[in-house]
Amino acid sequence: MRLKDLGERQVIRLIRRHPGGWGRGDVKLGIGDDTAVVRGPANLLLTKDLLVEDYDFRAALHPPRLLGRKALNVNLSDIAAMGGRPLHALVGLAVPGETDRKWLLAFLGGFREAARAAGVSLVGGDISAARKIMISVTVTGETETFVRRSGARPGDLIFVSGTLGDAAAGLRILEKDGRPGKVRAAGRLLGRFLDPEPRLELGALLARRKLASAMIDVSDGLSVDLAHICEESGAGAEIDPARVPLSAALRRFSKDPLTLALDGGEDFELLFTVRPRNAARLRALAERFEITEIGRITAGKRILAVDSAGRKKPLKIRGYEHFK
Amino acid sequence: MRLKDLGERQVIRLIRRHPGGWGRGDVKLGIGDDTAVVRGPANLLLTKDLLVEDYDFRAALHPPRLLGRKALNVNLSDIAAMGGRPLHALVGLAVPGETDRKWLLAFLGGFREAARAAGVSLVGGDISAARKIMISVTVTGETETFVRRSGARPGDLIFVSGTLGDAAAGLRILEKDGRPGKVRAAGRLLGRFLDPEPRLELGALLARRKLASAMIDVSDGLSVDLAHICEESGAGAEIDPARVPLSAALRRFSKDPLTLALDGGEDFELLFTVRPRNAARLRALAERFEITEIGRITAGKRILAVDSAGRKKPLKIRGYEHFK
Repeated sequence: MRLKDLGERQVIRLIRRHPGGWGRGDVKLGIGDDTAVVRGPANLLLTKDLLVEDYDFRAALHPPRLLGRKALNVNLSDIAAMGGRPLHALVGLAVPGETDRKWLLAFLGGFREAARAAGVSLVGGDISAARKIMISVTVTGETETFVRRSGARPGDLIFVSGTLGDAAAGLRILEKDGRPGKVRAAGRLLGRFLDPEPRLELGALLARRKLASAMIDVSDGLSVDLAHICEESGAGAEIDPARVPLSAALRRFSKDPLTLALDGGEDFELLFTVRPRNAARLRALAERFEITEIGRITAGKRILAVDSAGRKKPLKIRGYEHFK
Repeated sequence: MRLKDLGERQVIRLIRRHPGGWGRGDVKLGIGDDTAVVRGPANLLLTKDLLVEDYDFRAALHPPRLLGRKALNVNLSDIAAMGGRPLHALVGLAVPGETDRKWLLAFLGGFREAARAAGVSLVGGDISAARKIMISVTVTGETETFVRRSGARPGDLIFVSGTLGDAAAGLRILEKDGRPGKVRAAGRLLGRFLDPEPRLELGALLARRKLASAMIDVSDGLSVDLAHICEESGAGAEIDPARVPLSAALRRFSKDPLTLALDGGEDFELLFTVRPRNAARLRALAERFEITEIGRITAGKRILAVDSAGRKKPLKIRGYEHFK
């Protein structure tokens, strides 16, 4: 059944009465009034991400359950990068009237899975018709200690979680050889693009223990996101490209995995800096979390790649650009 | 200069450094990090509205300054309908790369005007390219007392602010005879559609003095929004169509102004119910605010139009439907 046969009120009812509900204990008023009312935390985090069809995802190739998960998880990644705990979500969904009810149910199912895993309540949103799908999710969060992008100081060590470049490789596979059947049987690289995971536990722990001096999630690409930290902190950086963590799957996929890791976006790993005095505590964390030291913050503004022989050259800052 | 020549980072910089700034005193961290951080109120209101090009507005006919104002003000109207004070905004903006920088500046200028008038800070958002413009704004608010849609009881009197149907007439003028030149010289009816005003002062006062038992903003049309209150409150209603407030401009424009007032959306007036014991206090407010009593809540579920001779017939519930 198509959404245009259901009509707007039925579509909203379907969201509101989605099996399993959407609620947390601190929601005083959820979906279905003019606004949501929730108990506010002392430090309120607010973030919003857009996913635009044909720009950020391809509807025919992105299974709706995974798209629902991703729509929330990319926002949770921003909360993770502040060191926060996510609380509430609002979803804005513009979809063609031709869309089938099943698509919406699968999308909501995925959204709810991700919300449940993170302890997040859906408390409201808006729905509209559109020629192409547009998803706008807003997430709130809380934290006692938050980690800005601007806190890095010369001498700080630079760490990154997980492996980088996998999502960019997944996107290339999709663009080159995307067929729905193939996508469903997605391997690790495709999975990293279609269904990224937010690093909430690591982010919150780094903030709580005051281990990270600056933090960002790698959404635009390592080179660009490192440049963000440097610009906001008024500092430079040196990284050793040989230490950038690459998955075995990425090495098999590409002859130049490092370029994908440096310039490819959407990994949603955490890039963070650590004062030298905290280095030992950080390295101890590497038993529980996949984290890799890749360089250090420097005085000045230059961002350099330094190889094992000590040769330095400027790092190319090339990331995803929405308007080109 | 087109946005695709500027590039994404410059576009964000342009927003961040927009003349006049975006800030309130309770913003700990605004635009430019992974999330915003604000001091959270005890009762946090959250709302989000989408504006989709060709569905909710026509880009060629909606002056960007007014579109910026409207993108925020329709959200402020939801805060007004809860009786809250607005605090912070996030803006998600998907626009074609061909869009001129001037368009964005005018849009932001309008957004900021409306934000300033309401004491709202822009604290973040997201930007993306898209084939058509899509605007998603999220607003937070606070209130000690909030007014749900579900609080109406049989016997409550029904009031509405302002005049109804003007925005629907404005939309018809635009669709029939829309030329940018004409739009710029817009009269009252066009202005009500292009540049609606949120009823923040009235909404907050009704909540603070505990005068409204249920409240909603008239965004879908009086008949539909009254049906929302009745459904949520498990009650019916009787209204006197002759008492529905109509502007002189609307009467001049249409031979059937009442249909536009009952079924036309986007007026962004407040529709609210009042316990009979508060009727006198409410009527005293009519000296400061334009408010009109139009009927009363009844037991049962039927929504009826009752004329001055006491004849009753079912009210047709016909409002804007996104997916038809």
